Amino acid sequence: MRTEVCETFGIEFPLFAFSHCRDVVAAVTNAGGMGVLGAVAYTPDRLEEELRWIDAHVGGRPYGVDVLVPARIDESAERAGRGEGGLETMLAAVPREHWEFLFGLFERYGVPLPDFEKARRGHSRGGTQVTREGAAELIEVSLSHPIRLIASALGTPPPLMVDRAKERGVPVAALVGTAEHARRQAAAGVDLIVAQGGEAGGHTGEISTMVLVPEVVDEVAPLPVLAAGGIATGRQMAAAMALGASGVWCGSVWLTTEEAETPPPVKAKMLAATSRDTVRSRSRTGKPARQLRSAWTDEWEGPGSPGALGMPLQMIIAEGAMRQINKVAETGNPGARELANYFVGQVVGQMNAVRPARRVVHDMIEEFADAVARLNAITGAH
Amino acid sequence: MRTEVCETFGIEFPLFAFSHCRDVVAAVTNAGGMGVLGAVAYTPDRLEEELRWIDAHVGGRPYGVDVLVPARIDESAERAGRGEGGLETMLAAVPREHWEFLFGLFERYGVPLPDFEKARRGHSRGGTQVTREGAAELIEVSLSHPIRLIASALGTPPPLMVDRAKERGVPVAALVGTAEHARRQAAAGVDLIVAQGGEAGGHTGEISTMVLVPEVVDEVAPLPVLAAGGIATGRQMAAAMALGASGVWCGSVWLTTEEAETPPPVKAKMLAATSRDTVRSRSRTGKPARQLRSAWTDEWEGPGSPGALGMPLQMIIAEGAMRQINKVAETGNPGARELANYFVGQVVGQMNAVRPARRVVHDMIEEFADAVARLNAITGAH
Repeated sequence: MRTEVCETFGIEFPLFAFSHCRDVVAAVTNAGGMGVLGAVAYTPDRLEEELRWIDAHVGGRPYGVDVLVPARIDESAERAGRGEGGLETMLAAVPREHWEFLFGLFERYGVPLPDFEKARRGHSRGGTQVTREGAAELIEVSLSHPIRLIASALGTPPPLMVDRAKERGVPVAALVGTAEHARRQAAAGVDLIVAQGGEAGGHTGEISTMVLVPEVVDEVAPLPVLAAGGIATGRQMAAAMALGASGVWCGSVWLTTEEAETPPPVKAKMLAATSRDTVRSRSRTGKPARQLRSAWTDEWEGPGSPGALGMPLQMIIAEGAMRQINKVAETGNPGARELANYFVGQVVGQMNAVRPARRVVHDMIEEFADAVARLNAITGAH
Repeated sequence: MRTEVCETFGIEFPLFAFSHCRDVVAAVTNAGGMGVLGAVAYTPDRLEEELRWIDAHVGGRPYGVDVLVPARIDESAERAGRGEGGLETMLAAVPREHWEFLFGLFERYGVPLPDFEKARRGHSRGGTQVTREGAAELIEVSLSHPIRLIASALGTPPPLMVDRAKERGVPVAALVGTAEHARRQAAAGVDLIVAQGGEAGGHTGEISTMVLVPEVVDEVAPLPVLAAGGIATGRQMAAAMALGASGVWCGSVWLTTEEAETPPPVKAKMLAATSRDTVRSRSRTGKPARQLRSAWTDEWEGPGSPGALGMPLQMIIAEGAMRQINKVAETGNPGARELANYFVGQVVGQMNAVRPARRVVHDMIEEFADAVARLNAITGAH
């Protein structure tokens, strides 16, 4: 394909794949698209390890990194995270009624309680990475690798990120859910805007891709815009580009690929789910994020719930809980299977078979060409 | 354009225009698309009058009628509507706390109270048309005119509608918000499915157009599918057809045309609104319907609200209230202006100038061609 984005990034197809899994990132990059590693769950050391692995597997082909830099976070939690004690202090900031609700949930669903502090320390920094300081460390690690894109998934990237990236000649992308945010991102010096519709998985607004993309394209022209949300097939990719997008940014579709590290009970749920089986809920991160509807989301939105906390506190308790739920769900525990979920968009209804990531890329490109041919047949006679 | 839908309906562009305004219906039909009159607000006599006017203004060109036939309605209200007293009996079924909330709302916003019974009797049958019997009368009036399409906006069309339409050789269309509903509609004998995404104005589900259209197309193939929701420009029309739709069904975009009978204060709000200024609320009809966010929706969703009633009771009190609010808003009453709203989709953000309906059609077709040309430029080099 010939697009400005393909030329800028040295890729064959303007197809960006957001994934927390390095294998997916490498597979899409090697298939002619651009893999972007979601770094939010990693410690700096772990991120370093993942990026080294990717460097060793893409033969110099372009890939990127996505860091979650929230514009507004719970400042008391941030202060706690910065102070002595770190995670322990943050855990202490979780109100008693939230702990009680959570422990009650585990009890009612017959899932053994995790040791929150131990579980979190053993695996990651548990939400502290979504403070500004945490994000800064991840940015530094990322820029020490030959990445070709650094993205900010939430809010305007801080000047630190833009400045440091520009020093290294690395383009900066930012996800937006409204035209107004896109204008602010453009003013902040972002090189590539990802306009993400409300049907997308993860943190998302309410304006649909069909409405948002042309608005954002017109707002920030001539900056290139990628469309995100509702895109898992070549028809949807063609639709996005008919709307004026210069390419697409897909996240959900990789979660059921062969390479994905999605916990098996969640993967099975996704393969069985329809497009009606997602919900936009604050129950995993404290901010509205689209995810599989499950007993977890139902209980947090239900009448007995104390309501989700803000970010990052809700993220800390939800991540610790989900790690345990997934572990126990794999043993067949029915309550844990009911609770298990993950971020995913409405396209989950079209994710019905496990494919290698490379095959997803090729299927999309082939179907894209078919869609364009069909449009030509319609106008050809005119 | 050459599509199956164009051939079936004898139209130049597969662009269907839903409007309650006969002038819009005629203008779109005369411009090469297909106008579809929304008949829900009319008495049978008034509908007869409107269709005669359209017949006299389209020179035999094709147009259609849309009737609201709810699958499930409040049966006690339906019984009341059928019994002696009609509207009066239905009004009596509205709980006291809802009247009190409504009267309090008028008082707080400084709007004189309407005489609900008188206002409603003077203008229409106020919600009784959304009973099954009410719909049957409108269907009979419609089929006595040379219409080329009869559509059911809500729920599976009753066998009566399908059978009577087929006797007359009139194709039947039905709006759906999920693939499952589309399958049921196809089984009920519908000829044309309108897949309406959650970004649409009026009664709508939650699945976005980008996700819903390919699902429905695959579900009911080879039945033709029109895409609805988020479509007000040629880029969006091209996107919809890239998704596999055989055409598009637009409603919101006509509300700010020259011909539209949209109350001036509401039209002004729409021209100023962004795509963020709509909300899916039960406050106008009792079923979730996307509309302009206003003091009306905020108050009904707010803490002091008794909650919306079901359909048609909520529709009865909301229509009576809105008629008064619009009348008073036109005199400049600030409270009435705050309350005023109307059904509209997220595309309201792109409705920034008043154009004749014919011009909207031509702009869409021209932009459609541009979008296809851009897609060709992308694939051409491949």
